[in-house]
Amino acid sequence: MNEVPKTVWWDDVPCLIDQLRLPAMLDIVRCEDLNSVIEAIRSMQVRGAPAIGITAAYGMALAAKRSTAQTSSKLIEKLVKAKSLLDAARPTAINLAWATQRMLDIAQANAQLEPDQLRQRLLAEAETIRDQDEAMCRAIGQHGKTLLAQTRNVLTHCNAGGLATAAYGTALAPIRAVHEDGQPIHVWVDETRPFLQGARLTAWELQQAGIDLTLITDNMAAYFMQQGHVDCIIVGSDRIAANGDVANKIGTYGLAVLAKAHNIPLYVAAPTSTIDLQTANGAAIPIEQRSTQEVTHIGQQAIAAEGIKVAHPAFDVTPAHLVTAIITEQGIAYPPFAEQLHTMVEAANAANARQ
Amino acid sequence: MNEVPKTVWWDDVPCLIDQLRLPAMLDIVRCEDLNSVIEAIRSMQVRGAPAIGITAAYGMALAAKRSTAQTSSKLIEKLVKAKSLLDAARPTAINLAWATQRMLDIAQANAQLEPDQLRQRLLAEAETIRDQDEAMCRAIGQHGKTLLAQTRNVLTHCNAGGLATAAYGTALAPIRAVHEDGQPIHVWVDETRPFLQGARLTAWELQQAGIDLTLITDNMAAYFMQQGHVDCIIVGSDRIAANGDVANKIGTYGLAVLAKAHNIPLYVAAPTSTIDLQTANGAAIPIEQRSTQEVTHIGQQAIAAEGIKVAHPAFDVTPAHLVTAIITEQGIAYPPFAEQLHTMVEAANAANARQ
Repeated sequence: MNEVPKTVWWDDVPCLIDQLRLPAMLDIVRCEDLNSVIEAIRSMQVRGAPAIGITAAYGMALAAKRSTAQTSSKLIEKLVKAKSLLDAARPTAINLAWATQRMLDIAQANAQLEPDQLRQRLLAEAETIRDQDEAMCRAIGQHGKTLLAQTRNVLTHCNAGGLATAAYGTALAPIRAVHEDGQPIHVWVDETRPFLQGARLTAWELQQAGIDLTLITDNMAAYFMQQGHVDCIIVGSDRIAANGDVANKIGTYGLAVLAKAHNIPLYVAAPTSTIDLQTANGAAIPIEQRSTQEVTHIGQQAIAAEGIKVAHPAFDVTPAHLVTAIITEQGIAYPPFAEQLHTMVEAANAANARQ
Repeated sequence: MNEVPKTVWWDDVPCLIDQLRLPAMLDIVRCEDLNSVIEAIRSMQVRGAPAIGITAAYGMALAAKRSTAQTSSKLIEKLVKAKSLLDAARPTAINLAWATQRMLDIAQANAQLEPDQLRQRLLAEAETIRDQDEAMCRAIGQHGKTLLAQTRNVLTHCNAGGLATAAYGTALAPIRAVHEDGQPIHVWVDETRPFLQGARLTAWELQQAGIDLTLITDNMAAYFMQQGHVDCIIVGSDRIAANGDVANKIGTYGLAVLAKAHNIPLYVAAPTSTIDLQTANGAAIPIEQRSTQEVTHIGQQAIAAEGIKVAHPAFDVTPAHLVTAIITEQGIAYPPFAEQLHTMVEAANAANARQ
C-alpha cells in the first residue's frame, strides 16, 4: 500500500491539515479545545463528510479530556452538550451526527467505568473511527476499480479525496486503486466554485499522487462530455437518503443531468456511514446556505460590485434515478437502491458490533 | 429611451470602457494606434461579439487616419493589412471579420475619393456601424420582450449586455425592455468562470439599470432549474452557423442541455451580423483556446498548485435542436432555422444597401 498523508489525527489533541491554506501552504492546526474543533469544521479548515465525522469524534474525545467531571454520569452530560454543539457546525453531512452519536453510545455503554477510563475508551473509539474510515476508503477503492476497467477519463467534482476522509478518499479511491495497479487513468477536475475544492484540493492531491489530471472550470464539463472525452463521473456524498437520493456539493445535480444526456455513468462513492436510513428521500435533506462572501470574493479579492444580491446553496440533491451505482465499503449497489442500501448499513452495523 | 452608457466610441481615436477593471473601477482606454486596438481586443479590455466588431471598425478608421499614404490605393493596401491583423485578435466572434470586411468594402467602393476624403468616409462608416448596433439592440429588445410576457425569472450567462455591444445589449435587451415597460423581472446571473463576465459585468450593469438580480456560480444554475425558479434562459452569441448552431461563451452548451431536461426555453439574442451563412454548422466554428492562467489565477491570486495541467476552451457550440428561438433585430426565428436565418441576413443586407 502506498503511504498517503493523513488529514485528521490525534496528537494529544485533534490535529488537522488546514485545508483553507492549501495548496499555497501545508499548515497543521492543533485544536486545543472543543470550540476550536467546532470552528475548524464550521470554517472548513476541515471538510468532506467523512473527515468531518472523524474530527467530530476526536472533538468528543477532547471534550471528555478537557472536562473536569468527577463522575462518568457528569462526563456523559458534558458529551451530550458537546454533541449538540458539534452537530450544529455543518447541517448537511450526516457523518457528523453519525460519529458523535457513536461516541455518545460508547460513553453510555461504558457508564460503569471510572471517568479517566471512560476518557481513554472514548479516545480509542475515535481512533477506531479514523482507522475504519481509511480501511473503508481502501475497500471502496477495491470495489470501485472494477467499474473503471474500460475507463480512461474520469470526471470528478469537489474533493472526495484523501483530504475529505482519514486518507485515500471516497470518489478518488477507485482512481487511486486503478493507478496503483499501474493502469493509465486521467481525471478531469472540476474547480468547484465557490470554494474551489477541486482547484485547491483535488488537483493538488492528485498531483501529489502522480495521477494525470486536467483542471477545468465547472461550466466546461458539458463541453468535454459533448466531445466524448468523459467516460464516467465519480463523486462523493454528504448524505445518501434511504431511496438513493444523493446530497453532494452544489453542481453535482447538474453533472448528473448532463451525464444522463450524454449516456455517461454517474457513480457515487461513500462509506455506509453516509447512508441515512432515517431520511426517506432527498427532499428531507437540509441544504446548507453558506456565506455569500464565498461567492463575491476569492480570498480577499472582490469579483462583484458591492451590494449585489447573491445565492449560495452549498449542496444539491441528485435524484436516485440519475445515479448509476453507489459504491460503499460493503460493495456496489445498483438501482433500485432502497433494499441494497438497507442491507449494506445492516452489514456495516453488524461488523461494528462484532469488533 | 433611457440613457445607457456607451461601451466604445470615437473621440479623435477609439475610446472604450476598460472591462478588465470593472466593477472595481470605471476606467477609459484611449487607443492611440492600431496595435493598442488589437491589444484591447486580445486582452479583453473590450469583449462581446458586437462590441469587438465596433472596436475593429474604429480600428480600421484609425489605421486609415494614422497611415501616411498619399493615394487611396496605397491607403487601401494598408487597410487590407490592418484587417488581417485585427481579424486574428479573436478567432471565434464573426462580427470582427464582418465589421472589418464592411470597412474594407466601403474603402474599395470609394477608391475614387482623395485619401483624406476616404479617411472621413471610413470614420463615418464606423460611426454608422456603432449607431446601427445600438438600434439593432433596441430592436432585439422590442422583439424579444414578447417572449418574456409570462416570465419573472430569466437566467443569463456571460455578458451579452450593453458592455458587449454599442449599448443596451443583446441578451439583456429584452430584459431591459420589460423593465422599461414597468413589468417585474428578476435575473439569475451566472458568474461565468473563468473570466467572470457575469459577476464583474452583467451584475454591475443590471445593478446600474436598477434591474433585480441574483448572482450565482455557474454550477448553481441546475439547482435553481430543479427548484422551478428559472422560467427561461437568454444568452448572446459569438457566431451563429447557417443551420442555427450557436457558438457562445463556454458553459452555454451545458445550460442548453439542462434547459431541455427541465423544459425551459433557451433564447439566443444576437444581431444578424452574428449569423455566418458561410459556416454550414457548428463543427466548422473555430473555438478559441485562451490562456490557462485565466483558470489558475483570479487577478494575481493563484487558486491551484503550480504545474497543474489546465484546459481552457473559451466557447462551446450549442446545436440548433437545443435552441428554442433566435432573436435578431429583424424578428424572431424558430426551428428549423436555416431558411429564416437566410431571409433575415438578406433583409439586413438590403436595409444596409438602401442607406
